[in-house]
Amino acid sequence: MAKVSLGSKTMTLPTPAWLVGSYDADGKPNVMTAAWGGICCSKPVCMYVSLQKPRYTYANIMERKAFTLNVASEADVAKVDYCGMVSGRDNDKFAVCGLTAVKSDLVDAPYVAECPLVVECRVLHIQDLGQHTMFVGEVFDVKVDEAAMKDGKPDPKAIKPIIYAPEDRHYYGLGADLGLGWSLGKEYK
Amino acid sequence: MAKVSLGSKTMTLPTPAWLVGSYDADGKPNVMTAAWGGICCSKPVCMYVSLQKPRYTYANIMERKAFTLNVASEADVAKVDYCGMVSGRDNDKFAVCGLTAVKSDLVDAPYVAECPLVVECRVLHIQDLGQHTMFVGEVFDVKVDEAAMKDGKPDPKAIKPIIYAPEDRHYYGLGADLGLGWSLGKEYK
Repeated sequence: MAKVSLGSKTMTLPTPAWLVGSYDADGKPNVMTAAWGGICCSKPVCMYVSLQKPRYTYANIMERKAFTLNVASEADVAKVDYCGMVSGRDNDKFAVCGLTAVKSDLVDAPYVAECPLVVECRVLHIQDLGQHTMFVGEVFDVKVDEAAMKDGKPDPKAIKPIIYAPEDRHYYGLGADLGLGWSLGKEYK
Repeated sequence: MAKVSLGSKTMTLPTPAWLVGSYDADGKPNVMTAAWGGICCSKPVCMYVSLQKPRYTYANIMERKAFTLNVASEADVAKVDYCGMVSGRDNDKFAVCGLTAVKSDLVDAPYVAECPLVVECRVLHIQDLGQHTMFVGEVFDVKVDEAAMKDGKPDPKAIKPIIYAPEDRHYYGLGADLGLGWSLGKEYK
């Protein structure tokens, strides 16, 4: 298949559209939307989010050394988009969106009550890469809505996470179940 | 909404299911499946993948200081699963899966011809986090199948990326288009 070169671009699929929760120096909660994030270690469990230095959340995480990564459900996609459009310096995004900041017992950051899946992190490493700084956090807890659990596990079809597509700049839902891992591949073994 | 605590787990949504392309010291191409990966900087454009030290690909990337991140299409989900089940030490995964290794002109790693979206990276930083080591690579090119381009941009609905759900351990396709970023959020501005 002939391929087109796009050059050095921030383009892959999927990327997330997470709400990053943090407190500022005065204890005001904020959320911002971020797509540059992921899991980066299984033991200790680590996740990261990359942020630009001018962002309000950047200063908050530098101050508090903690953040939450909140997976919103697709019904809240417009709220997620809004939280990436404006700064918490000038807006109380929780109030505008009708979202609830819950103080974590484990890390110095708020999580979003309305998000069916939330991850609570304390900063472990900070790596300045250029335009973005990568905050690697150790995961202290993952919390999931009771209604989104099935057979003792988080159910992706109930969580309905939002997927972001760079370049295209659209958000997408989760699609069809394609099958079980460590199982489908037996066809080739 | 009442939430259940799962503890410190590698759980979020979405995570990718990428094929990581590399050469070993003898020039033999290999692919392995990885879900701990993402975009981590916009300038220079950087992406990372996290790997465990015993992995064949870990030694390859340490040797060659380059890797590719290949986004397979959902029709190839069984091949993607297989490439996460066995080691390239004992298997020629390209041959078994009927996949084609293409030598990159830009980085010292092969990409997968059959993947509609491929990203070519040279290692910029290596961070040992514990069970996993994070390889941050600078992106030298993103290549997309001509047939998966639409209006000059990669079309996620044509690429049909695979999404992995930790804990649940199922693969999913991309779902419905939920709308355009920096646009839906105007409802709250």
